[in-house]
Formats: sequence, C-alpha cells, structure tokens
Amino acid sequence: MTAGLARFSINQMTVKQLSMPELAAACGESGVTQVGLWRAPVQEYGLRATAKLMRDAGLTVTTLCRGGFLTATEPQARAVALADNRRAIEEAATLGTDTLVLVSGGLPAGSKDLYGARERIADALAELGPCAERHGVRLAVEPLHPMYASDRCVVSTLAQALDLAERFPAHQVGVTVDTYHVWWDDQAPAQIGRAGAGGRIHAFQLADWITPLPQGVLNGRGQIGDGAIDMREWRGLVEAAGYTGPVEVELFNDELWARDGREVLAETVERFHSVFQ
Amino acid sequence: MTAGLARFSINQMTVKQLSMPELAAACGESGVTQVGLWRAPVQEYGLRATAKLMRDAGLTVTTLCRGGFLTATEPQARAVALADNRRAIEEAATLGTDTLVLVSGGLPAGSKDLYGARERIADALAELGPCAERHGVRLAVEPLHPMYASDRCVVSTLAQALDLAERFPAHQVGVTVDTYHVWWDDQAPAQIGRAGAGGRIHAFQLADWITPLPQGVLNGRGQIGDGAIDMREWRGLVEAAGYTGPVEVELFNDELWARDGREVLAETVERFHSVFQ
Repeated sequence: MTAGLARFSINQMTVKQLSMPELAAACGESGVTQVGLWRAPVQEYGLRATAKLMRDAGLTVTTLCRGGFLTATEPQARAVALADNRRAIEEAATLGTDTLVLVSGGLPAGSKDLYGARERIADALAELGPCAERHGVRLAVEPLHPMYASDRCVVSTLAQALDLAERFPAHQVGVTVDTYHVWWDDQAPAQIGRAGAGGRIHAFQLADWITPLPQGVLNGRGQIGDGAIDMREWRGLVEAAGYTGPVEVELFNDELWARDGREVLAETVERFHSVFQ
Repeated sequence: MTAGLARFSINQMTVKQLSMPELAAACGESGVTQVGLWRAPVQEYGLRATAKLMRDAGLTVTTLCRGGFLTATEPQARAVALADNRRAIEEAATLGTDTLVLVSGGLPAGSKDLYGARERIADALAELGPCAERHGVRLAVEPLHPMYASDRCVVSTLAQALDLAERFPAHQVGVTVDTYHVWWDDQAPAQIGRAGAGGRIHAFQLADWITPLPQGVLNGRGQIGDGAIDMREWRGLVEAAGYTGPVEVELFNDELWARDGREVLAETVERFHSVFQ
C-alpha cells in the first residue's frame, strides 16, 4: 500500500465543526487534497459556491454523502425520496465527484419486514441508476453495521449490498466499504474480493471501533488506531481486490467535534501516516 | 406452534428485581413452570438452596446463564476462565438443567485479532465439552449481536457459532438462538436449519429490538411485541428445524427493571400469549 497522503481523503463529517471555507483552508495547511462532502453543509454554503471553493482550493471531492432512505412503502413518501435522490445525483455531478454514497433507510414505522424493505431499495435503484449514469455519477450502496438495521439501514452486510448492486451495471451501482460497519464480519473479506472483481468498490472509508458505544450509537466512531480494527488489514483487502481510489476517513465522534477542527484534521493525517507507514 | 405456557420459560434477568423466592412465588401465581437462571443470583441465594427452592416450587430450570469469556491469551487468565466454566457446568447439573449458555468473550485488551480469539474458544470447548458431558450438561454457544464483537463476544453469527460447535459432538456443544442477536442476519434462517439438522439448537431465547439503543447497548432489549422482530417467524424457523424445547424470554431493560417484577412477569406472559396466539 502507498504511504503518504496521495490516497487520503478527509470526510467533512470528521471535522464538522469547520465551516466550508475553514475546511478548505485547513486542508491546504495539512497537505490534504481530497475531501468527502455531506449534502446538508453543501446546501448551507451553497452548491455552486462549494464547487467553486473546492476547485479554487485545488481540492478533489471524493464522495458526496448521502442519498438513500429508499424504504418507504407509501407512494407519496417514495416519490419524495426518489426526487431527493435525483437532486443528490445532480449535486454530486456539480461538485465534480463521481460517487454518491447511499444509506438505504430503515424499516417503515411498524414494519418487521427486512426482506421487503431491501426489495424496495432494488426498485429504487432501478430508477436511480440510469439517472446517475446520465450525470456520470456512481451510486455506492453502503452496508451499515447491523445495529442500525431497524432505524437507518436494512442493508447490513457487504453480501447484501452486492446482491442489490449486481442487479445493475457496475458503473451505475456499487458499494461503499466502511471498516466501522464491516470489521466484525468474517464474510467481508471474501465479499470485498467479489466487489473488486466486479469493479464495484466505489468508496472506501475508515473509522475505528471503540466502546462503550454512546446512547443512540451514532457518534462513537473511533479515531483510526484507537480501536479494535486492523486498518492495514482492511486496506490491504480492498487493494488486493484492485481498489486504487481514495481512502476516506469518516468519523462521527462527539469528543472530536468538541475540539479544534484543524487540530483534529492534523491528528487524523498523522494517524493515517502512522497506521499505514 | 403451540399456544399456552407449556413451552414458555422466564429468564430470571427479565425480572431481576425479584429475589429468588419472589421469582418462584411469582411463577406460581402466573402459571409459569420454567425458568432460566443466572449464576450470580444463584450464588447469592446459594446453589443448593436455589435447587431446592425450584424443586419445591415445581419449577424446571431451562438454562443456566452463563459460562464463557474464553478468549484470554495469558495462561493464568485462561486457566482461571476454564476453572470457572467447570464450576458453571457443575452448578448447571446441581440445578437440574441440561443447558449452560456460553458467551464467548471479547478481544483481549489491545488485540485486533477476531480470528485468533475464536480459535481460543475452540480450544477451550475441547477441554470443557467432555467435562460437560460427564455432568449431563450441553454447552450452548450464543452468538451475540455484532455490536458486542469487541468487548463481549467475538462470535457474532449463528454460522460462526456452528463452525465452532460442529467440531464437537452435539450432546457436548450446540448453540443458543436469541432473536435479539440474529434477527438482522439474512443467513440466520438457513443456519437455524443447519443447527436443527445437527441437533444443536440447545436454547431458544426471545427479546425484541427497539431503538434508540442506550449508552453501552446492554440494557435496551424490548419486551416481545414492542420492536422490529417478527417473533412468530423466528419461532416458526426453530420449530421447522425440529426444536421442541423451551421458549425463554430474556430481557435486559432498565425500564422493566424499574417496575414491579410480578407485574413485568404477568405482562411478559400476556405478551407471549398474544404474540403466539
């Protein structure tokens, strides 16, 4: 694997305390050339203004997070979700990234039907895939850890994500491999091979697993190197599967967010160096 | 599936606010004839006293929870864990249950090696299996939800639990199927079939999945019927696989523990009736 920062990308959520211009400036100071962005802060700063800011700062946008939430049963809610995902595709194209990360969505209220929810995602991908292709954007279905299966993402494993993605061309639909979500899964290494063979690893993200998990289990992702996940092993797996794209660090962590964002970015860069040296 | 309480067992942890005699009395009042016990309250009340109390109350002990925590690398810690598990086997035999539930244990401090930890469990089962057989006790390896993989249980799926169990005779080592831990897993139905075909479903436990998860994610299990899990489907799966044993409700829930234990037991019985009617 390559040392240095050529492959590194900082996901904006890791340093969400930074405004968009602060993020661009901090990247310049730290030698970071790639960023993953989120829709809400992009919309807040303005889509075209963000695209210009990133261009002017020499920053490449590696992913836009996120589309998805495609499990509604009610026709009106489903139409709203599809329209929102079409906008997300257009936003990704405007930002110059070729990758839109999709978080599938959880069970509709009162439902216990994981299988039906996964089928509705497939139906939605059939509509969104061609739209993404027209914009030069690839959809990257992200399996989330099974602890999110009911309320955020009914796609819990890489195998499930690939079962969905492989119904469509690889340039339309692939997967996101995030260490935080797949590290526990002894099937994941083989599934990474499957994804790589099909050209479907569209994004690779790092976060470490630390405990105890916080209430709601959203904002307890560990700085890389702090937890139970062997980052070198997982990076080695995606690279052995042929992946040569960005390695994005995406942390949701209340403690990191309480600190100075530029310091957190510098720490993340340093950890990236030390973990992969 | 059979309605009525013939198959029902109340795991003591569901109503841990009840003392051992209160538990026995409450079971009598509610028509409950089977209980799953935990080692700590048994030891507190006294092993032989508990066995006598249960016998006198006409209660069958369906499981003893729990042995395990077998992932230590350090020889002294490993010897201590094995000795403790031998005691747990003897306790199970004294209580008259044929089933000791095993929670494997998490990663040793600083380790990132899930595979090595699972192999150490296999080594421990090779020592404990014959001991269990001599006492007429079966070890029931319980996969815990992947959110516990680092700190409590490196065995996260039924497939992994069966990969371990099948190295040994079924009358020595099988698995525990707990809806809370496996409900998200699309491989679990097939693995239940595999377990049943091998005569390795040694325990079946119910808890429902509700969100948000509490800090530490230990004590947020939902009353059956309150969450995302289709209890009828899972009971149907284990019964289709040939399981005819107890259906034990095991809830860890701070809100339930804050209420009157007899009321919680009565509610649990009523839910069991309504979910399976």
